[in-house]
Amino acid sequence: MPGEESVTIVVFSGELDRALAAFNIATTAASMGMEVTMFFTFWGLGVVKRGTLERGGKSPMQWMMGMMDRGGTGHLKLSKMDMLGAGRRSMKSLMKKYRMPSLEEMLPMAKELGVHFVACTTSMALMGLEEADFIDDVDEFAGAATYLGLASTGSVNLFI
Amino acid sequence: MPGEESVTIVVFSGELDRALAAFNIATTAASMGMEVTMFFTFWGLGVVKRGTLERGGKSPMQWMMGMMDRGGTGHLKLSKMDMLGAGRRSMKSLMKKYRMPSLEEMLPMAKELGVHFVACTTSMALMGLEEADFIDDVDEFAGAATYLGLASTGSVNLFI
Amino acid sequence: MPGEESVTIVVFSGELDRALAAFNIATTAASMGMEVTMFFTFWGLGVVKRGTLERGGKSPMQWMMGMMDRGGTGHLKLSKMDMLGAGRRSMKSLMKKYRMPSLEEMLPMAKELGVHFVACTTSMALMGLEEADFIDDVDEFAGAATYLGLASTGSVNLFI
Repeated sequence: MPGEESVTIVVFSGELDRALAAFNIATTAASMGMEVTMFFTFWGLGVVKRGTLERGGKSPMQWMMGMMDRGGTGHLKLSKMDMLGAGRRSMKSLMKKYRMPSLEEMLPMAKELGVHFVACTTSMALMGLEEADFIDDVDEFAGAATYLGLASTGSVNLFI
Repeated sequence: MPGEESVTIVVFSGELDRALAAFNIATTAASMGMEVTMFFTFWGLGVVKRGTLERGGKSPMQWMMGMMDRGGTGHLKLSKMDMLGAGRRSMKSLMKKYRMPSLEEMLPMAKELGVHFVACTTSMALMGLEEADFIDDVDEFAGAATYLGLASTGSVNLFI
Repeated sequence: MPGEESVTIVVFSGELDRALAAFNIATTAASMGMEVTMFFTFWGLGVVKRGTLERGGKSPMQWMMGMMDRGGTGHLKLSKMDMLGAGRRSMKSLMKKYRMPSLEEMLPMAKELGVHFVACTTSMALMGLEEADFIDDVDEFAGAATYLGLASTGSVNLFI
């Protein structure tokens, strides 16, 4: 029965750690044969916006490192890392050593595995974005009704 | 079968963007004929607290603008907006142009559509809040057991 | 049928308020006879890391108070509390008065009630953590596939 084994993920956050968690769950579910839809909304639209990944030639890892060096959330993240027992420097080398999968790698992997990408039209209107502003990997432009139609038959629905 | 087509949303966050996302999903689901319960807990209690919306005569949009001008999360949000390719000024005018639905509009709309509002009694005790502190739109004061009873038969359960 | 009445919670955040919300839902669900799995990932790993709770002899409440006194998220939280109508000082005394359940109390309670603890191996590798770094209450070390196997038959699946 279609839908029994399907996953929907609302990608609301534009933070890299949450985006990576979303892609990790999405690609794993797809590789297990589940139907997966990622619904990008609000700050999450940034993930599938044209140019985000290429911006300034920075890799997401550099982006994350930049966040750690910044104030605000960056400081928070660093403090959390310290809580986990690793200083900033050792964390950087660990991330290089263990080679954290980057969004540039996970996004095409998700597409190859058949993950469906939907960009939220309500958020697009709010932010003044148009279909042409998004990467070609976006399969559909739709609102909350489309999302709810999918989620109501989904077995796992997450808001990240 | 009751519950098959029901939605529960835990509104944990007091941030306006997340609250608006919650109301957008709630009102859309209710208008599709689904039973919807919003369970306000922790910072989310602020959304249904008496006086929050009227505070200082500010509309939620002004509230959000205030957040953008402040330090902390405000800076974060602004930086995310910059990432989305719009500066602060242009974002402000876009929000006016596209007229972001405000909480003052969405909250009564949700009630008209029959969305059920529950305020979390555990969080209320923790924060020293009483039933009289909340707007009349709150239908029920209850704890996690009530939430879980609803969610276990719900088709879409989100934690926002 | 196993799984009908089961709950899975991804504990992604390392913030105390979100961790407490996760434990509140988990222990309530377990006491209602539901099967509960908490999947600790990313910053959430800190919750089940050896030494986190004992660190510096601080109780989680002191930890939260420390967060409130700090910059960044601390300021945010304080401002939210102010929004809820309680100043910093009154909040502190209210938390003492109502005796907010601490993680030190909720974690063993969750174990006694049979809540299953899983630590995410992908995040562990990223952060350079090994099985020995975690408290004995962790029942299993596994990745997203294990989580999805449980969640696909779960009646309530939350990402916190």
